Amino acid sequence: MAGIDLNADLGEGFGVWRLADDDAMLRIVTSANVACGFHAGDPAGLLQVCRSAAGRGVRIGAQVGYRDLAGFGRRFIDVSAEDLAADLVYQIGALQAIARASGSAVSYVKPHGALYNAIVTHRDQAAAVAEAVRMVDPTLPVLGMAGSAFFDEAARRGLRTVAEAFADRAYLADGQLVSRSEAGAVLQDPAEIADRVVSTVTSGRVTAIDGTQIEVSVESVCVHGDSPGAVQIATAVRDRLKAAGFEIGAFS
Amino acid sequence: MAGIDLNADLGEGFGVWRLADDDAMLRIVTSANVACGFHAGDPAGLLQVCRSAAGRGVRIGAQVGYRDLAGFGRRFIDVSAEDLAADLVYQIGALQAIARASGSAVSYVKPHGALYNAIVTHRDQAAAVAEAVRMVDPTLPVLGMAGSAFFDEAARRGLRTVAEAFADRAYLADGQLVSRSEAGAVLQDPAEIADRVVSTVTSGRVTAIDGTQIEVSVESVCVHGDSPGAVQIATAVRDRLKAAGFEIGAFS
Amino acid sequence: MAGIDLNADLGEGFGVWRLADDDAMLRIVTSANVACGFHAGDPAGLLQVCRSAAGRGVRIGAQVGYRDLAGFGRRFIDVSAEDLAADLVYQIGALQAIARASGSAVSYVKPHGALYNAIVTHRDQAAAVAEAVRMVDPTLPVLGMAGSAFFDEAARRGLRTVAEAFADRAYLADGQLVSRSEAGAVLQDPAEIADRVVSTVTSGRVTAIDGTQIEVSVESVCVHGDSPGAVQIATAVRDRLKAAGFEIGAFS
Amino acid sequence: MAGIDLNADLGEGFGVWRLADDDAMLRIVTSANVACGFHAGDPAGLLQVCRSAAGRGVRIGAQVGYRDLAGFGRRFIDVSAEDLAADLVYQIGALQAIARASGSAVSYVKPHGALYNAIVTHRDQAAAVAEAVRMVDPTLPVLGMAGSAFFDEAARRGLRTVAEAFADRAYLADGQLVSRSEAGAVLQDPAEIADRVVSTVTSGRVTAIDGTQIEVSVESVCVHGDSPGAVQIATAVRDRLKAAGFEIGAFS
Repeated sequence: MAGIDLNADLGEGFGVWRLADDDAMLRIVTSANVACGFHAGDPAGLLQVCRSAAGRGVRIGAQVGYRDLAGFGRRFIDVSAEDLAADLVYQIGALQAIARASGSAVSYVKPHGALYNAIVTHRDQAAAVAEAVRMVDPTLPVLGMAGSAFFDEAARRGLRTVAEAFADRAYLADGQLVSRSEAGAVLQDPAEIADRVVSTVTSGRVTAIDGTQIEVSVESVCVHGDSPGAVQIATAVRDRLKAAGFEIGAFS
Repeated sequence: MAGIDLNADLGEGFGVWRLADDDAMLRIVTSANVACGFHAGDPAGLLQVCRSAAGRGVRIGAQVGYRDLAGFGRRFIDVSAEDLAADLVYQIGALQAIARASGSAVSYVKPHGALYNAIVTHRDQAAAVAEAVRMVDPTLPVLGMAGSAFFDEAARRGLRTVAEAFADRAYLADGQLVSRSEAGAVLQDPAEIADRVVSTVTSGRVTAIDGTQIEVSVESVCVHGDSPGAVQIATAVRDRLKAAGFEIGAFS
Repeated sequence: MAGIDLNADLGEGFGVWRLADDDAMLRIVTSANVACGFHAGDPAGLLQVCRSAAGRGVRIGAQVGYRDLAGFGRRFIDVSAEDLAADLVYQIGALQAIARASGSAVSYVKPHGALYNAIVTHRDQAAAVAEAVRMVDPTLPVLGMAGSAFFDEAARRGLRTVAEAFADRAYLADGQLVSRSEAGAVLQDPAEIADRVVSTVTSGRVTAIDGTQIEVSVESVCVHGDSPGAVQIATAVRDRLKAAGFEIGAFS
Repeated sequence: MAGIDLNADLGEGFGVWRLADDDAMLRIVTSANVACGFHAGDPAGLLQVCRSAAGRGVRIGAQVGYRDLAGFGRRFIDVSAEDLAADLVYQIGALQAIARASGSAVSYVKPHGALYNAIVTHRDQAAAVAEAVRMVDPTLPVLGMAGSAFFDEAARRGLRTVAEAFADRAYLADGQLVSRSEAGAVLQDPAEIADRVVSTVTSGRVTAIDGTQIEVSVESVCVHGDSPGAVQIATAVRDRLKAAGFEIGAFS
């Protein structure tokens, strides 16, 4: 029986502010991309979500981002490779201690938001992210987009790369995501999303927004926790994958 | 031959801003209390100072503080024990990763500024600091003030406590420091400071500001890096200790 | 017909994070205490809420606080009077520009959270807040608690003071609020809250948590926007006041 | 007698950190570009420098920047026009209150660092900056680079534009500055810099790094306060301009 990982962004509040229903998502996913304090995440909130994840046996990943609370890490910042690498070492280390204090550990690294998008093509920042992971622990896998500059730089450093698909995002013919500012960028219907996910992980192909069939070989599927209906969508994806014979489990 | 440790606060810049001549201080001290980003310290700057410390064989400690860049951690914040403990786990973990990436490690923890002062008597925050260290690594020693609530809480958790004296600060009769806002709180003359340090570590006593002799049994002496003449004072302290037959070395 | 003002805290999100249903509250209250960026409030969000307030004819006040996004301004900070006064001048000025750009203006100042509580008794900080308002514009009224050190300092500087009652908070016999950490500190039932408000503004008395009758002469009633059922409670208060013959309108 | 304005960046510390010798620079320049808290500048420090400027009759400008203390506003941030405009309204308003509390006023606006550079060509951000100034006060002049998208957008909104030359920066043939990361980007020799300034303001031309003569019609000259030898360079520029018959004074 084929296995598939489900990942979601969690711990993305700050102080009194909360974004998603973390506890509900932790009942669905197998990998929790926990914010590290630079785009979101205060330490007490991170400790809480890591304890919940540990209690449910959900694996913890470090979701690293630009230092930009006001922009939630969704704005490209032209930070130097040197500063970016140090920022990420800092973030991963911080979450490692939080995770350990929760009886768990950081098991992988996933870039967030504008950083995620930038390092699909931005060579210097891609190298900085890969280098940061290598500096902290070269055995940590990285979660990201197949074919990206980031995966290229990660592979050059001997890091394990884990490709993911986005359950609710439309794709361009080149495999990149349709920008959130475009119409049709984010799918809304749980049944449609769940069907597409099953089709994608079964066939290794997804239909791009222009109708092109593109190859998307993935080990993990990203479901979002912060959209309206997030829990319902994630549940639909999980249930349909199971019904299609997949075992939901953390990537090895 | 008796040994004594010299510690100083380092890495206390932020972005373009620098506070002390870290490289000069690293040629003098044996333990570097490196900021962790909450009261000072940007990751790239921290990586740089940790690399310098590692290169010179100077031990790295995590200098943890309140989240208050604008106040440099010098203002008491009535943060809850739960939030404070999480803030400190986060800071220590962040510096651990930075230190490891520098080929070194965090070898102890020292609270900074208003937090240092608060936990001399503030039981809840003292317990939170001790608990944070225990959560991260119960083998990490803590540097602080003998007789403090902090040392009491640390000892209750089995943490090793390392008492320090302040080279350039005047003492009250109860062993606490004269507040920086009082006249005579900070000594200025290198020779006088060096003489007092030697007398203190030799006799285990220091003369308080009111003339009282108080017991100050210490394993480490704190020299400041951010005052005018800091390097000169630290050098005088080191030279006079050596001349008096002490071996300058990190506490065991 | 007697008039009464209804005020609520608004604009207390930050970036992607939102706290209350600002638009719903703006349909109910007559004075909007808009955050100024130090405890909450990003400029684009503040501009949005000020435009909504201006569009509905709701008066804008500057809700100033400690610089503490992580703690939402709910933690006492031992900031010096000099720094605090400058922080407040900065915040009020920032909101003045935002309000003017919205076609409105800042019409009063109300301290937030831990600062509000501190200056009931903390003389230095109370003086700093009053001094800041005076420096910006001595004709700006201040909203706060009758009998506080803050009102005393404000009056000494010739500032107009506007006393308020809290719709949903229990009182101590000395007129201060029961701490949020105590049981019974926050009332929950809309009808009970609305009845108490009408009784308070009609009689000038409220029953403290120990049964004591205390005098509470007020020109404004604070309703909270960020609690569960906030909109329902605020609506109940407004409707009951109107039914009792009060005209709901901004204080003069 | 022809007049020329000298401007410099001031108030660019944060908390305990200081960058330049503000008092020395205030004895030389006629316009002070005072930071507004987003790339640098804490309120108490800003109040201090505004009081010094007011005391010396030096005009105050609002030096607005990206929200990026860690990067000192020197990193491009892909912030939306809407958010950027609100950020700038906020900053200008904050400094207006600080300046008024100092007995002065904000007399112009100058973008800082990466924002300054971006809006030479970035149309959306250029429009956002111009729009922010217009929203706050359409009579406020803006200081910047002639020929920039920013000046075009400012002129379209009826704002007065004041062109400046950089005393110590090398120019490209297209009138833009040589990037700081390039060799020869920043001139160091006081005499050479002063000579070039006099030549530029006299002839309206400056020699670009490739030898091209380019037209640079300016009303103000920017001298830096944060480089080694800054005060010496600024003094040389001022003295040589005076010797060449220019009257040093704020632009009208």
